[in-house]
Amino acid sequence: MVHLLLDCNGVVILLCVWTVHNERSGAGLHAAVCWTHGPSVCCEPAISIDEEVAKLLQLKAQLGGDEGKHVFVLKTAKGTRDYNPKQMAIREKVFNIIISCFKRHGAETIDTPVFELKETLTGKYGEDSKLIYDLKDQGGELLSLRYDLTVPFARYLAMNKITNIKRYHIAKVYRRDNPAMTRGRYREFYQCDFDIAGQYDAMIPDAECLKIVYEILNELDLGDFHIKVNDRRILDGMFAVCGVPGEKFRTICSTVDKLDKMAWEDVKKEMVNEKGLSEDVADRIGEYVSMQGGQDLAERLLQDPKLSQNKQACAGLTDMKLLFSYLELFQVTDKVVFDLSLARGLDYYTGVIYEAILSQTIPAPAEQNGADEAGVSVGSVAGGGRYDGLVGMFDPKGRKVPCVGVSIGIERIFSIMEQKAETSSEKVRTTETQVLVASAQKNLLEERLKLTSELWNAGIKVEVLYKKNPKLLSQLQHCEETGIPLVAILGEQELKDGVVKLRNVASREEVDVPRADLVDEIKKRTL
Amino acid sequence: MVHLLLDCNGVVILLCVWTVHNERSGAGLHAAVCWTHGPSVCCEPAISIDEEVAKLLQLKAQLGGDEGKHVFVLKTAKGTRDYNPKQMAIREKVFNIIISCFKRHGAETIDTPVFELKETLTGKYGEDSKLIYDLKDQGGELLSLRYDLTVPFARYLAMNKITNIKRYHIAKVYRRDNPAMTRGRYREFYQCDFDIAGQYDAMIPDAECLKIVYEILNELDLGDFHIKVNDRRILDGMFAVCGVPGEKFRTICSTVDKLDKMAWEDVKKEMVNEKGLSEDVADRIGEYVSMQGGQDLAERLLQDPKLSQNKQACAGLTDMKLLFSYLELFQVTDKVVFDLSLARGLDYYTGVIYEAILSQTIPAPAEQNGADEAGVSVGSVAGGGRYDGLVGMFDPKGRKVPCVGVSIGIERIFSIMEQKAETSSEKVRTTETQVLVASAQKNLLEERLKLTSELWNAGIKVEVLYKKNPKLLSQLQHCEETGIPLVAILGEQELKDGVVKLRNVASREEVDVPRADLVDEIKKRTL
Repeated sequence: MVHLLLDCNGVVILLCVWTVHNERSGAGLHAAVCWTHGPSVCCEPAISIDEEVAKLLQLKAQLGGDEGKHVFVLKTAKGTRDYNPKQMAIREKVFNIIISCFKRHGAETIDTPVFELKETLTGKYGEDSKLIYDLKDQGGELLSLRYDLTVPFARYLAMNKITNIKRYHIAKVYRRDNPAMTRGRYREFYQCDFDIAGQYDAMIPDAECLKIVYEILNELDLGDFHIKVNDRRILDGMFAVCGVPGEKFRTICSTVDKLDKMAWEDVKKEMVNEKGLSEDVADRIGEYVSMQGGQDLAERLLQDPKLSQNKQACAGLTDMKLLFSYLELFQVTDKVVFDLSLARGLDYYTGVIYEAILSQTIPAPAEQNGADEAGVSVGSVAGGGRYDGLVGMFDPKGRKVPCVGVSIGIERIFSIMEQKAETSSEKVRTTETQVLVASAQKNLLEERLKLTSELWNAGIKVEVLYKKNPKLLSQLQHCEETGIPLVAILGEQELKDGVVKLRNVASREEVDVPRADLVDEIKKRTL
Repeated sequence: MVHLLLDCNGVVILLCVWTVHNERSGAGLHAAVCWTHGPSVCCEPAISIDEEVAKLLQLKAQLGGDEGKHVFVLKTAKGTRDYNPKQMAIREKVFNIIISCFKRHGAETIDTPVFELKETLTGKYGEDSKLIYDLKDQGGELLSLRYDLTVPFARYLAMNKITNIKRYHIAKVYRRDNPAMTRGRYREFYQCDFDIAGQYDAMIPDAECLKIVYEILNELDLGDFHIKVNDRRILDGMFAVCGVPGEKFRTICSTVDKLDKMAWEDVKKEMVNEKGLSEDVADRIGEYVSMQGGQDLAERLLQDPKLSQNKQACAGLTDMKLLFSYLELFQVTDKVVFDLSLARGLDYYTGVIYEAILSQTIPAPAEQNGADEAGVSVGSVAGGGRYDGLVGMFDPKGRKVPCVGVSIGIERIFSIMEQKAETSSEKVRTTETQVLVASAQKNLLEERLKLTSELWNAGIKVEVLYKKNPKLLSQLQHCEETGIPLVAILGEQELKDGVVKLRNVASREEVDVPRADLVDEIKKRTL
């Protein structure tokens, strides 16, 4: 007999496992000792804890668990929401603008499963890995819901040995974060990603990504915006010449990333008190990260006596200059700012990084939960950068496929569009129905269905009320409520004359149209 | 100190839990005894097994688990697949046809989260519940991936107190089934659902659902098909008059459902040997389920001396007659068969049920896994029916919202369309690019980017190679590979003359177009 003693939050649990001869199969199970105490772990080869867990869960299922104890709650899972028809109409409009832009730039599209093998996601997201949703182990593979679309994209490229592709992918991703739904932050949310993979000449695809962000934000008509640009190599070079030890680059990077939400004084405090930098080093960083500009700033920094000595920084600054020359050709430099304080959270970026910020702010309602996701400032609606190493992490031989891409933060855009629709006088239509087939008299259901079918077969979008004898008033009301512009009214007289009375719902005008001309007339009026 | 002894497959595990004073918080934890032995369960109020499981899992995480032991496998999760750009192009085409049809019938659309509270799905799917994917308990709510779109729809209606809606919903659902991917059966797959909720006059919305199936299968051009129709009330009435005990209705229904894949003799054997019916009763069922027809069959059965005595059967048959009269008006009776052997698997149907079957069969490749999903015959591509009780299961006061709907089995349709595309000589385009901006000479990158940007700004779909000095041949090859119809070629001479050489890729014709006319010329040629 062996024991397994766990010390979790001051509660000590002892799991005693012993070997019993299985009488039916004749097999025995051997278990070994596993002992933990406090922070130190001492462990001999142990019986798989998975097996014990599975057995406990099985027992729990046999016992019936907690079911029936609590009252049934009618709700969606925490941090998720349904989209109602009105929200879907807005969503469709936004997607159409974004997809049109992606297609205008020659992108293909792919789709990947909503869950991946757990190990595919392991080691890609740094600290954020704790936010990954895992599926229950029901036997078979260990799975997790995708956390973004970039890692599945890299897995797809490596798995299919693809070295060149320009693709977009619009799909939901999952993060067990503290939701802030009124500000458009959910646990299930859409990402709209555009990425260019392939070995190309420097900064040309990178410039196209920025052009795309510019076009989309312009077309969505969300008010003024600007796009911050920086480069991980510039950041690393800057940290090096300021005297940050190499092993602290990433953690100091995270601190710099907070500059969009915190004052420099607080960021500096974190660097000194929490991250252990000297005041001197922090102050040197402070000088750099306050710099903003365009191509001119890149040129000036290339002359900087310290930065110009750093190889990484020089490479990044030279590329930044080149990037701005392409952005000039694309006529987007009015919104792009080279900003040394932009750091971005994710580990996998290796070169240029960027983030688009709306100038307008959403009035943030009072929320119980004040914690804010690291790396997403209030107005950020798009972000991305170059990640030349990620695909290689999946390739058995480590072959690299350079990639650059951008992700549009669509939920925040939905929130803004929904608020706009709320305050606008224009009604959002949730159907595209062109005409309602109606009658004023009784016993005309069959005639209504026949005409409806004729119109469907001609490609017209038609509705008919599912009542034997609906009142004309309720038929007209349905049109007004749902925005149907036309009513085709049948009566005994119309049937005799071979016509249909076509009524314009808004103007209330009515005109008799020969049945043979009805399709053309409806098409003409609802172009 | 207490013990928890589990007997699982002959291995006895004893979990000893005792209470220890938590020094920091001053709180104590009380645990009670839970004892199992063999099949009998004797249980006092016990400490939550969840907690113990969570602690074991936490310990496992501290120990590092199995990670690093096995080799990393580059694959998607079992039963799932990526869609490559070609598959996505086909998928988009199929979706457009289906969505156009739904919109033609005046449907709105909604979306629901990919996971629901586990209890929302509990008790809705009968035996199939074992196929539900659960999420790991990471603290918080217990969640499951949606199994279909119908239960989330019913939850949505009840939660929002909606009593009238015509909506479609196209989204992925999840089933831990034995995948048969070559035949289009996956663990992650799309459903395209159209449903009408509301209290209406009999059979009008039901007829529209069948009209929709008819239209979609026609437009997808998948060859001949037929739609089987039956009614749960007719089935139940039939079972009653044949002498099936009431408690066996559902299980005999499942057996009848196998008639599309099994001979009557085998189905009869199952009824008698496994389900315990007498030979007599089975033979009486056998007579009925061999019947097929149209409105005439409904009329004949209304005269059947036994069936006509059963209230349920009469109601079903009367509605069936009415349904056929509407289908006649919709001109779809050529494909609809009233078939008494149609049963369908799901528990929640209460009235009319239907299933569409393609006549063409996909050549089934040899598969390791011979097991077939219950309820889906090889050629079935759509199914549905009336479920008047489901929404009421979610309403605190049990208020019913009658519903009828249909689900299009899109994966099977994708498989067929993909096979068609494989054998067709026509190439599937994966982008919509109208023109490639190219040059034959060196050092024209900036001019290419400038023209590209001009065309993007004018709404033209343009690509440009991301190389400083690409060869003209490789630029033309890119067009041929991806189906780009036009090339806009820039050279020193063209720049001087203010023109662009526009080349038709297929015919190789070239013509100089004044730069100011280029946008119009491209639009004209790529209508």
